Amino acid sequence: MRRFLLSTCFGVVAAFATGGAGANDELIKMSQNPKDRVMATGDYANQRYSLLKQITPANAGKLQVAWTFSTGVLRGHEGAPLVIGDVMYVHGPFPNPVYALDLNNDAKILWKYEPKQDPNVIPVMCCDTVNRGLSYGDGKIFLHQADTTLVALDAKTGNVVWSAKNGDPSKGQTGTSAPMVIKDKVLVGISGGEFGVQCHMTAYDLKTGKQAWRAYSAGPDDQILVDPDKTTDLGKPVGKDSSVKTWDGDQWKIGGGCTWGWISYDPQLNLIYYGSGNPSTWNPKQRPGDNKWSMTIWARDPDNGVARWVYQMTPHDEWDFDGVNEMILTDQNIGGTARKLLTHFDRNGFGYTLDRTNGELLVAEKYDPKVNWASKVDMDKSSKTYGRPLVVSQYSTEQTGEDRNTKGICPAALGSKDEQPAAYSPDTGLFYVPTNHVCMDYEPFKVAYTAGQPYVGATLSMFPPAGETHMGNFIAWDGKTGKIVWSNKEQFSVWSGALATAGGVVFYGTLEGYLKAVDAKTGKELYKFKTPSGIIGDVMTYEHGGKQFVAVLSGVGGWAGIGLAAGLTNPTDGLGAVGGYAALRQYTSLGGQLTVFALPAQ
Amino acid sequence: MRRFLLSTCFGVVAAFATGGAGANDELIKMSQNPKDRVMATGDYANQRYSLLKQITPANAGKLQVAWTFSTGVLRGHEGAPLVIGDVMYVHGPFPNPVYALDLNNDAKILWKYEPKQDPNVIPVMCCDTVNRGLSYGDGKIFLHQADTTLVALDAKTGNVVWSAKNGDPSKGQTGTSAPMVIKDKVLVGISGGEFGVQCHMTAYDLKTGKQAWRAYSAGPDDQILVDPDKTTDLGKPVGKDSSVKTWDGDQWKIGGGCTWGWISYDPQLNLIYYGSGNPSTWNPKQRPGDNKWSMTIWARDPDNGVARWVYQMTPHDEWDFDGVNEMILTDQNIGGTARKLLTHFDRNGFGYTLDRTNGELLVAEKYDPKVNWASKVDMDKSSKTYGRPLVVSQYSTEQTGEDRNTKGICPAALGSKDEQPAAYSPDTGLFYVPTNHVCMDYEPFKVAYTAGQPYVGATLSMFPPAGETHMGNFIAWDGKTGKIVWSNKEQFSVWSGALATAGGVVFYGTLEGYLKAVDAKTGKELYKFKTPSGIIGDVMTYEHGGKQFVAVLSGVGGWAGIGLAAGLTNPTDGLGAVGGYAALRQYTSLGGQLTVFALPAQ
Repeated sequence: MRRFLLSTCFGVVAAFATGGAGANDELIKMSQNPKDRVMATGDYANQRYSLLKQITPANAGKLQVAWTFSTGVLRGHEGAPLVIGDVMYVHGPFPNPVYALDLNNDAKILWKYEPKQDPNVIPVMCCDTVNRGLSYGDGKIFLHQADTTLVALDAKTGNVVWSAKNGDPSKGQTGTSAPMVIKDKVLVGISGGEFGVQCHMTAYDLKTGKQAWRAYSAGPDDQILVDPDKTTDLGKPVGKDSSVKTWDGDQWKIGGGCTWGWISYDPQLNLIYYGSGNPSTWNPKQRPGDNKWSMTIWARDPDNGVARWVYQMTPHDEWDFDGVNEMILTDQNIGGTARKLLTHFDRNGFGYTLDRTNGELLVAEKYDPKVNWASKVDMDKSSKTYGRPLVVSQYSTEQTGEDRNTKGICPAALGSKDEQPAAYSPDTGLFYVPTNHVCMDYEPFKVAYTAGQPYVGATLSMFPPAGETHMGNFIAWDGKTGKIVWSNKEQFSVWSGALATAGGVVFYGTLEGYLKAVDAKTGKELYKFKTPSGIIGDVMTYEHGGKQFVAVLSGVGGWAGIGLAAGLTNPTDGLGAVGGYAALRQYTSLGGQLTVFALPAQ
Repeated sequence: MRRFLLSTCFGVVAAFATGGAGANDELIKMSQNPKDRVMATGDYANQRYSLLKQITPANAGKLQVAWTFSTGVLRGHEGAPLVIGDVMYVHGPFPNPVYALDLNNDAKILWKYEPKQDPNVIPVMCCDTVNRGLSYGDGKIFLHQADTTLVALDAKTGNVVWSAKNGDPSKGQTGTSAPMVIKDKVLVGISGGEFGVQCHMTAYDLKTGKQAWRAYSAGPDDQILVDPDKTTDLGKPVGKDSSVKTWDGDQWKIGGGCTWGWISYDPQLNLIYYGSGNPSTWNPKQRPGDNKWSMTIWARDPDNGVARWVYQMTPHDEWDFDGVNEMILTDQNIGGTARKLLTHFDRNGFGYTLDRTNGELLVAEKYDPKVNWASKVDMDKSSKTYGRPLVVSQYSTEQTGEDRNTKGICPAALGSKDEQPAAYSPDTGLFYVPTNHVCMDYEPFKVAYTAGQPYVGATLSMFPPAGETHMGNFIAWDGKTGKIVWSNKEQFSVWSGALATAGGVVFYGTLEGYLKAVDAKTGKELYKFKTPSGIIGDVMTYEHGGKQFVAVLSGVGGWAGIGLAAGLTNPTDGLGAVGGYAALRQYTSLGGQLTVFALPAQ
């Protein structure tokens, strides 16, 4: 009796899906249809820019809530729903329910999938029980469960087509990232940097779930899939054993470098891009060396996983400046020359622009003026420290030493930005970046590794920069020059993903729960609405029935909201993870809701 | 730094609160201020009618969501928030958080109270972990916790002023009802009819929490607080041992008659009104007799608890037609005579109108034409069965007998209406009644009593009336004549409390999650909005900053939503409690959110 209402896109997919690489062509095409949203990142370039333009600076103030939906789960809701034709796919944190909602029928639930998972995975999820979203390809919806199971669901029925186990939660390996369908494969990262996991990017066959390749972030060349002669680092071949020689003994086996961030893809170059996370432990004294290739931008061939180039942003991390943040691919002119660019806002507070064809470093500037741990990134190609941050001794936790407190480091461990993805508008040529404006005191200590147990090795406290009270900014950034164009203060970190639109309106959410619309050119606030809970989800837009909708998941949590999510009430709880966010409980409480906005009927 | 913004009402309360009975005068006054809502029932008369009239049939279609708030709890959200001046008090189901929200500051959380309760109370809550709301008096907010603790919170700080233990969850006694402040006392009922609790209404001193009186529903005269000579039943004194002589031996000690519904109060008559619930067990063969005073409307003196009159609607219950539904007090003309009326929509499917001064039965008519278990209520004063329902043998589960199935009884055990309160508009003279349009098969079985264990003794299955597919109606009822004026079909039971307004708009919520506004005169739908989760809360309205707001809690659950709330997926789960509501999961999922509506700015 229940009508099933999928768009004609499915028919088209079916036609393309017979050839492996064809699925890629179709996904590219589908991702270019602004009415839909077929991947968690919006598009392969991770621009999170939509061609929809019904909502403009002139009318955004009239936005209304169109409809709402509860996910039935509390705690941190990262990511965003997908929309394919007349169906919206909504996900949630552990236990990771997936709902298919009928947009033609008041969001009636076409199907629900909820995996059975061992709740013992919860304590090994470092930073809340989050899940960053679904992906689509070949008629299937892909879910990366908390327990690392990658499951392929029939988009029409929710039935499991195949599933693959990507890791082992008993060893601290967990799943939080959105999978990404690239050509005939599904790529998925892994979390566990605070548990000494040797992390990897893994590709599974789209049709069968069979593992195609796995590339670790640290280890021998055949594990990290580098070609010593062809894989380059700032233009030079990385050479043999580029990773293992930067670790003390076998430490790379428990070395972190996790891969829980977003994945980008350039179909023309046939390269994927993603970042690897912090080296384990957080105590730098315990792991001498550059700890390659943690904290690294990776460019890999999606067909075999082999790396084309690498760039390590924070050699020998001393601050947990996990390098997983997204790589935004744009084509812009620099100095009159058209360049294929990759822009990345790292946890370490530097906004990097590179040539994505070869990894050439073009720009590296602080996107929060309070960043103090490094004076700059050395841009002198003739220098021995070319491309490396010049660490300020006062803020070196290595130099301060174990069991001693390094005070006033900016940014804090959660970075000037964490997973919350930025957006880019080709109309303005600006990046819209949700940022954390937070500093920290950091005290490393010796920690022994035990599989499945926390392997953190530092405590910290977090607070706004001296003399300030706000903990976040939403900024517009010129990636060609490395300059802030405008900046809006926010009381708390902006932990929500941004959305840019052709209408000239940029959207983001706040930890207090506001959905905000601002003018892309000036940052002027056009609209705000208080959703049921704090927003750490990514704003998305779609068109249905001729109307543009804007949707966002509420549900406070994630690292910034871990105090509320896990019931930690003191700033010092969770080795200091709660910090200044303890005040959040004055503004919001746990939730798990989708709020969908639209302009009123004329 | 945090501003504290309570209305001037608090000052007035303080002035009155020195004299005990004064608190009553003040609450009456406060309850007459339509900007506020000082009691869960809206007013003492339980009319749930508001004098606010900005929202009219002409503009209701333009309503928008103004703001939202997550309670941080899932499962069934019954009741409604209070508003006193600039502060809104929001409650939730177990673990029963209470939030004070600053309406002048974007609903910032002024304080939160969340009791520590033993989660073992959850399995002894028959019909979800619901809580029906807070009460206010003497500068204190009163919360009736799931574990039966009645706690008085300082309205300004949330600090506990006093607390009293009203029952023992280990014996199946739980708290779900809203307390009611009457004069210098706080009155509170108790739940546990499915666990053989001897239920009671208890009054506590407003200032100290000391127990003032306790009146059981069944038992010896000194326990049920009746005066054999003065307490009347249909105009005649009840006589000595009116309760115990209607039970077999000591069965009244485990006889139910619970008191988890709403309480009404007539200050002029100085009488409170409430209903007592089903006798325990649900197997009628096991408890011969009328089982007085289960299933009874009680009129009691709030000062000492002594009963003025009683009326038993369903002697010797065979269907779980629990009599707790609210008593709505109105003054209307019948036959040209001004009468002080009490109208009650019983689970048994009859809408009763009585003279509330003396309990005279004026009207008893079916408010769902499908009701079939009784042909009528005998209105012949000369008859031996005067005032009693005339049971249809075919639907008598007693006559069918133990372990045998009586088919097609209408209504089902959850009644033509359950706790979901109706509203009354003096403008139209109509009652607006959220109803269940559900029938059942019922099979009693022998059950042994063990303290703290279920003492149900029947299984059932529930379904719409033969030949129909909808399970609810929202009706307008003329209480003087006992006739349906208009009726709107709903797919599921309307388990939300109604609100009538002077603007001529009536509001209610649906189990799918819609907030609906209809024309009070015609029932025509003026507006609907899909909130995040199914609505079993009671719609309320308040005025702030010169603007009328309408608010409702979402959060599917309660009996009708127990399948979703407790994870029961088959219609036969929970001894059949899930029934036809199993289809609800196609429409909504668990939640816990407040949605606040208003007209757009001009």
